[in-house]
Amino acid sequence: MKERLTIVKVGGAVVEDEQQLAALIGNFSAIEGRKLLVHGGGRRATKTAERLGIATRMVGGRRITDADMLEVVTMVYGGLVNKQLVARLQACGVNALGLTGADADIIRSHKRPPVDIDGTAVDFGFVGDVDRADDAMLARLIEAGITPVVAPLTHDGRGHILNTNADTMASTTAIALARHYDVTLVYSFEKKGVLANPADEESVIPVITRTDFERYKADGTISGGMLPKIENALAACEAGVERVVITLATAIDGRHGTVITR
Amino acid sequence: MKERLTIVKVGGAVVEDEQQLAALIGNFSAIEGRKLLVHGGGRRATKTAERLGIATRMVGGRRITDADMLEVVTMVYGGLVNKQLVARLQACGVNALGLTGADADIIRSHKRPPVDIDGTAVDFGFVGDVDRADDAMLARLIEAGITPVVAPLTHDGRGHILNTNADTMASTTAIALARHYDVTLVYSFEKKGVLANPADEESVIPVITRTDFERYKADGTISGGMLPKIENALAACEAGVERVVITLATAIDGRHGTVITR
Repeated sequence: MKERLTIVKVGGAVVEDEQQLAALIGNFSAIEGRKLLVHGGGRRATKTAERLGIATRMVGGRRITDADMLEVVTMVYGGLVNKQLVARLQACGVNALGLTGADADIIRSHKRPPVDIDGTAVDFGFVGDVDRADDAMLARLIEAGITPVVAPLTHDGRGHILNTNADTMASTTAIALARHYDVTLVYSFEKKGVLANPADEESVIPVITRTDFERYKADGTISGGMLPKIENALAACEAGVERVVITLATAIDGRHGTVITR
Repeated sequence: MKERLTIVKVGGAVVEDEQQLAALIGNFSAIEGRKLLVHGGGRRATKTAERLGIATRMVGGRRITDADMLEVVTMVYGGLVNKQLVARLQACGVNALGLTGADADIIRSHKRPPVDIDGTAVDFGFVGDVDRADDAMLARLIEAGITPVVAPLTHDGRGHILNTNADTMASTTAIALARHYDVTLVYSFEKKGVLANPADEESVIPVITRTDFERYKADGTISGGMLPKIENALAACEAGVERVVITLATAIDGRHGTVITR
């Protein structure tokens, strides 16, 4: 039987607010067994870029990463946010080690080619689409008692850091590590879980399987931005992840929220 | 017999100039066997601070690290410089992994108490004086085929990152790893080595032992800023490091420059 591994993904909003950050550190530290944290940091990057006089350009909600912005995200994600999380976790007895995809070559990617958006070719710049993760090296670090803290940066193997979506980093590491562990992938969310009724914060759907999803999609219970989120979660499950949990940042132990599973 | 390990320390000037950086990456990649890189980045930190409107204050050539400056050095040393080095080394086939002292708890420190300078108590701020290095964890990473790339940051075990002198980081890791390896510690320098005659760039002293040092000190051959450098190198040797080499950044293979040994 495989050992359990909990992978938690938290967004920028959580790590940038001291109260939420303190709660996250406490809650993540309390998770028993092997674990891994993936973090964002977009708002902080936007703020730092602004202070440096670098304009943030977004297309369809996604950041355009030009050379200047790449320096900012490398500093903010790989340095500031990552090292603060590592130091705070160390203070709670978690043997955290910060990683980007370049470190120990754990996640390699290629620069995204221009994307057609409404008939226009949009170049997102230094953004990496993931090619592969080194599951053996990640497992080796985890078996050495380390808790990896992963920043949303990858590399192309030719000397360039690339900006990569944090949700993708989380699903990539989860799928890769499913070869070694019984993986629970927890996405922190601004609600208690996937709601059956958007007007009722307590109407959390406890479990969603592929069959449930098709039914909820057909009857309109789940719609809009939740559709790709759950589609990606189901894809991770179909690629070997045991369960994906969508939950509040304050309830990341894998026992709250909506469980998505095969 | 212990395996050989080469530890190279490079200053900020080297990593901030593209031509010197490219040479360093090539030369470091060519070093055979187990190795570890320690880098600075002070000039880049000063520039980034300036762009952020944060004043750099120095006392006696040393940076005062207030809260704002700590964020800058965490970003620049731990993020920008470290990750660029890691990605560039990966492109040369070196399985680099970036570390601060907080990562995997490898180097712990305490905040330096105010220092008396000419009768005035100077508080250097968030600066860490090293307490201990985890030689077992460092050796475990190295034995996993990893080349650590160490940024000059440590942590106090209570959640705080601290700014730490890169030379100290290098001697600390060298002394700690001397328990496991036959360690050569290479300091990159702006000259070919320690010169017998400052006017003659070719007058490199090939070997300096404690006895030689005392003689050179007495006869005035070695003076000024070189005295503490060599004193520290001899102290590292007396603490187990096999040899310390002072050499040009372009000749870091341990076979050029001045060798300081017991």
